[in-house]
Amino acid sequence: MRKVLIIGIGAGDPEHVTVQAVNAMNAVDVFFVLDKGDTTADLTEARRAICERFATRRPFRTVVIADPPRDRAAADYAGAVRDWRDERARLIEEALLAELGEDGVGGILAWGDPALYDGTIRILDTIAARGAVPVTYEVIPGITSVQALTARHRIMLNRVAGPVHITTGRRLAAGWPEGCDDVVVMLDADLACRAYRDEDVDIYWGAYLGTPDELLIAGRLGKVIDEIEAVRRDARARKGWIMDTYLLRRV
Amino acid sequence: MRKVLIIGIGAGDPEHVTVQAVNAMNAVDVFFVLDKGDTTADLTEARRAICERFATRRPFRTVVIADPPRDRAAADYAGAVRDWRDERARLIEEALLAELGEDGVGGILAWGDPALYDGTIRILDTIAARGAVPVTYEVIPGITSVQALTARHRIMLNRVAGPVHITTGRRLAAGWPEGCDDVVVMLDADLACRAYRDEDVDIYWGAYLGTPDELLIAGRLGKVIDEIEAVRRDARARKGWIMDTYLLRRV
Ligand SMILES: C[S@@+](CC[C@H](N)C(=O)[O-])C[C@H]1O[C@@H](n2cnc3c(N)ncnc32)[C@H](O)[C@@H]1O
Ligand SMILES: C[S@@+](CC[C@H](N)C(=O)[O-])C[C@H]1O[C@@H](n2cnc3c(N)ncnc32)[C@H](O)[C@@H]1O
Repeated sequence: MRKVLIIGIGAGDPEHVTVQAVNAMNAVDVFFVLDKGDTTADLTEARRAICERFATRRPFRTVVIADPPRDRAAADYAGAVRDWRDERARLIEEALLAELGEDGVGGILAWGDPALYDGTIRILDTIAARGAVPVTYEVIPGITSVQALTARHRIMLNRVAGPVHITTGRRLAAGWPEGCDDVVVMLDADLACRAYRDEDVDIYWGAYLGTPDELLIAGRLGKVIDEIEAVRRDARARKGWIMDTYLLRRV
Repeated sequence: MRKVLIIGIGAGDPEHVTVQAVNAMNAVDVFFVLDKGDTTADLTEARRAICERFATRRPFRTVVIADPPRDRAAADYAGAVRDWRDERARLIEEALLAELGEDGVGGILAWGDPALYDGTIRILDTIAARGAVPVTYEVIPGITSVQALTARHRIMLNRVAGPVHITTGRRLAAGWPEGCDDVVVMLDADLACRAYRDEDVDIYWGAYLGTPDELLIAGRLGKVIDEIEAVRRDARARKGWIMDTYLLRRV
């Protein structure tokens, strides 16, 4: 049966790759790469560099699959993601059949950890459930951007025996999560945290974590939010894209 | 100035060690090990094996520090943790002064990721703030038991664009976290999830994740809780200790 390894590669620093991930990469016959076009060309290049650096023990091929377009303006966000995932699954299924021998091992590199805001596991789940191409898969965990954030700020994620909430910018915009004073925000296009600038909240912000472009700012939210906003705007203008994450801590 | 590297080593599988962690281990002159006595002798041994396997490029020394006793029955849980941490900080400070040269590099291996329910970062913070022994420190992230759990069950941590809550058994016993249907529970001595056995909740449970003793059970909570309880009891009796984590997903 065909086997696919979904390999977490960390969220920026190539040295976040684990020994398990290195071994997995060296078992792969064909890497399947979803090309998301210009906006994330840097990330596609980062993935390529990781393969090149670590998958050295045997030859491998790379198959690039053009990513289907996604309706980012759809009112039904979850539905749009689902449609897009189905189309992606169909394309990957086709590629597995065409490019991978019946006992072949495919590899898909996932940014950060495959379990956190990533579509790869669900896609393989869909393909496996459909059964048109018999396939098994394994998941190899990776360092998330959340861990890159806390490590670089040298802070704890939780307070002593306290809980932690991980959420999206979209959800934070709808309100502070109840019953939790420590909130990690990802996938935030607009710094939704600005709404809390007058409250007693500390922010630990990081962009391009683990890369040479890394940016770190921390402090009382009301004091540093303007700086973060300015730095973020400049960085995005300069590079054409930004990836940032932050922890809010009510004090 | 003395420097301490707080190195996340993953939560069970030695191959979860990252390339960055391997390089860090190979920069260490002295590893400081907190010996917590019999109950976690296996974990101390796992740490030793990781040093042995990966810190091969230069000689290192190991200094074992007897862990101070901790009042686990204290009513003021956070206060007791604080006292215990202060005493730990004092002992480590002493050891840094006595055992590490002025430009030496110390290493402390942290189980999983140092930012998640671990005391090492706060201890170094305390020592650095006190200033009696000038010291800097760096944090190297590691794969958490949460990621080991999701990888082995091949599941997502979050649902599409949904939030995730990470909490303790003690807090789950006080009530289901509000506004979140996906909850990870750690540090749970008694399977506090049993309280939700009659609700529409799936559980993904894992013990000794990443080790040869790994146990995995998943299913509708009400259907599998008795099995988990029995398996857990047997395993704990056999090994003398247990480390387990689970994800609850309201369906
Ligand atoms: C689609 S999610 C993927 C998350 C990834 N699976 C992980 O484990 O970190 C993308 C979001 O992750 C965060 N992110 C990923 N890499 C990052 C980095 N190097 N620096 C800052 N944030 C990052 C940002 O919040 C971004 O919007
Ligand atoms: C003191 S916390 C340390 C957590 C660690 N820093 C991490 O990143 O996973 C210990 C708790 O982590 C979880 N844990 C750690 N290692 C585990 C393993 N191998 N399997 C299952 N649970 C584990 C258990 O819930 C345990 O009670």
